[in-house]
Amino acid sequence: MTLGFTLAAADGTARAGTLHTAHGDVPTPVFMPVGTAGTVKAMTAEAVRSTGARMVLGNTYHLMLRPGAERIAALGGLHRFMDWHGPILTDSGGFQVMSLSQLRRLDEGGVTFRSHLDGSEQRLTPERAVAIQHALGADVTMVLDECTPFPATKAEAAASMRLSMRWAARSRGAFVPRPGHGLFGIVQGGVYPALRAESVAALAAIGFDGYAVGGLAVGEGQETMFAMLDVTVPLLPADRPRYLMGVGTPADIVGAVARGIDMFDCVIPTRSGRTGRAYTSRGVLNMRNARFADDPRPLDPDCACPACARHSRAYLHHLIKSGEMLGPMLLTWHNVAYYQDLMRGLRAAILDGRFAAHAAALAARWAQGDGA
Amino acid sequence: MTLGFTLAAADGTARAGTLHTAHGDVPTPVFMPVGTAGTVKAMTAEAVRSTGARMVLGNTYHLMLRPGAERIAALGGLHRFMDWHGPILTDSGGFQVMSLSQLRRLDEGGVTFRSHLDGSEQRLTPERAVAIQHALGADVTMVLDECTPFPATKAEAAASMRLSMRWAARSRGAFVPRPGHGLFGIVQGGVYPALRAESVAALAAIGFDGYAVGGLAVGEGQETMFAMLDVTVPLLPADRPRYLMGVGTPADIVGAVARGIDMFDCVIPTRSGRTGRAYTSRGVLNMRNARFADDPRPLDPDCACPACARHSRAYLHHLIKSGEMLGPMLLTWHNVAYYQDLMRGLRAAILDGRFAAHAAALAARWAQGDGA
Repeated sequence: MTLGFTLAAADGTARAGTLHTAHGDVPTPVFMPVGTAGTVKAMTAEAVRSTGARMVLGNTYHLMLRPGAERIAALGGLHRFMDWHGPILTDSGGFQVMSLSQLRRLDEGGVTFRSHLDGSEQRLTPERAVAIQHALGADVTMVLDECTPFPATKAEAAASMRLSMRWAARSRGAFVPRPGHGLFGIVQGGVYPALRAESVAALAAIGFDGYAVGGLAVGEGQETMFAMLDVTVPLLPADRPRYLMGVGTPADIVGAVARGIDMFDCVIPTRSGRTGRAYTSRGVLNMRNARFADDPRPLDPDCACPACARHSRAYLHHLIKSGEMLGPMLLTWHNVAYYQDLMRGLRAAILDGRFAAHAAALAARWAQGDGA
Repeated sequence: MTLGFTLAAADGTARAGTLHTAHGDVPTPVFMPVGTAGTVKAMTAEAVRSTGARMVLGNTYHLMLRPGAERIAALGGLHRFMDWHGPILTDSGGFQVMSLSQLRRLDEGGVTFRSHLDGSEQRLTPERAVAIQHALGADVTMVLDECTPFPATKAEAAASMRLSMRWAARSRGAFVPRPGHGLFGIVQGGVYPALRAESVAALAAIGFDGYAVGGLAVGEGQETMFAMLDVTVPLLPADRPRYLMGVGTPADIVGAVARGIDMFDCVIPTRSGRTGRAYTSRGVLNMRNARFADDPRPLDPDCACPACARHSRAYLHHLIKSGEMLGPMLLTWHNVAYYQDLMRGLRAAILDGRFAAHAAALAARWAQGDGA
């Protein structure tokens, strides 16, 4: 295997392990902050590290358009460019081509689209997506897939999934194995268990270093998402890491870890931080709310991040109300720190064999609120 | 004296000293980053400290309107609110009432204006300005003055200055002396040497802990500003700190230090950082410029700030072009660090008796450019 993965413990279907990459080891379950365009928005790389984050995600779509993968390669690769010396997973660009670009045309060979930045015509194929990620220096490369829209009929979901499986095989062929670098396949199939099973079988037959579950958290709701995990995850090779793409809220993550997922990424902590929403051990706080204007308490008394250790809720409220950049900076820092704390807590609970009790305690505390 | 000031050395008319405040000692000449609304924009307080900055400025106008001085006082004062535990100088609000507020009416008693935030009617008097700064917990309090517009006739400048002198006396009467806290008078008089001299005499007769030169850097140009310093600074009490308000570029600061100024504040390093302009040992670089897109060199090879130590010009260009918040964050950090390096260099040169040669070498290097 080009990318190492070792399992340390299981508690029910929840797993604790370690991903071994060219840029170091990553304890799992892991949450990867999203470094869209070569930066985890509103954070220095040092601040990201300080939260305990060990792996981040980069977006192929954004980086290929600006500043360009070849330019980043000439400058020494994405790790050096963004001063992130831990592992990086890059997506294939497929999801964002579908959600951001204009005038896209899908064909058997790949997808042609216009850049949302300058309208220039661009093309991504399975081979080109792998080559771009190679140029960026990704530790984990994702296959190009079509993220099946929701809702989709079974026939639409089947056709879309089967195209993705053919692309997955081509991606595998284009990927150059190197020690510590891996290629992940992506399970599609919409909300149809039979299609999910067919997709897993197709990917396992090709053979990947890890398996992602794609096409979820696109509007189907948490219950359906969990139901899809219930039918999909047990079919995945047990000795390989499992990655649920683009998920999610803390409750989504706890539920997915319970179902055997090892890896996550999501813009929720960073995007929410920019709009004044804080994820805390007491649930979600909207720092725009006037009830915080005179609140001398820390945002989250259980958190050691700079926003919580050094400032009052009143100050954070003031920054957000005033449109001061430090507001998004501190709330993003906190949210990323909270997500890392969450993952550490989940891992410790799995290692101790008390995952279910820990998950229940987390949920109870979120529901309890902040006592204001 | 309530605020200590000791002179360590003079080199020509340039001075090196130490300001002794309730929140610690500050080597002079000193540049105070501007923490407008309780935050040096786009920087954590820890980042500000990391540049070597020892004293910051807060804006009474902004803080009295939002979140309110009484609220900050109830939360433990401005130092605690913004996590800045070194000295803070607060302006009196006068300058920003003139530049930002609406429908202002000046009378002998003070100034009535409408908030630019919500249109509410507000009033500042010399006594109220001192009380607000007391509530904020300022180490250095500034008297309320009218910043004389430029251009102004001699009669206009005289009338404006004399009102400010009457307000200065009332401010002195309202100020409660406390150890390590001081009140500064502000010299006005436009571009008229006789009025500047009259203003200095009026302030010296009242007696202040420090003397600011106001009403400059408002459009009169560097040559006129320096000419006003040439006629004003020699008249100021030699044993008290001298503060040139709202100045300026590195060249402005070097010229003013040469003329005997000890203290500075200006939004240039922070505002420029947000628009992509970097002040460096090689002059000003506009990081939006396409020539930096592939430039692997550090922003300023002589700077140890995170922007320079960890990133390429190409990365900073990418961040600014992409509208990523990290661009303003890193460039602001750099600019504030550069200004602090500049002040340390000026102070060392004064202590070594080589100020003129050092100033000439700085100017030559700025003119030489970055070699791109």
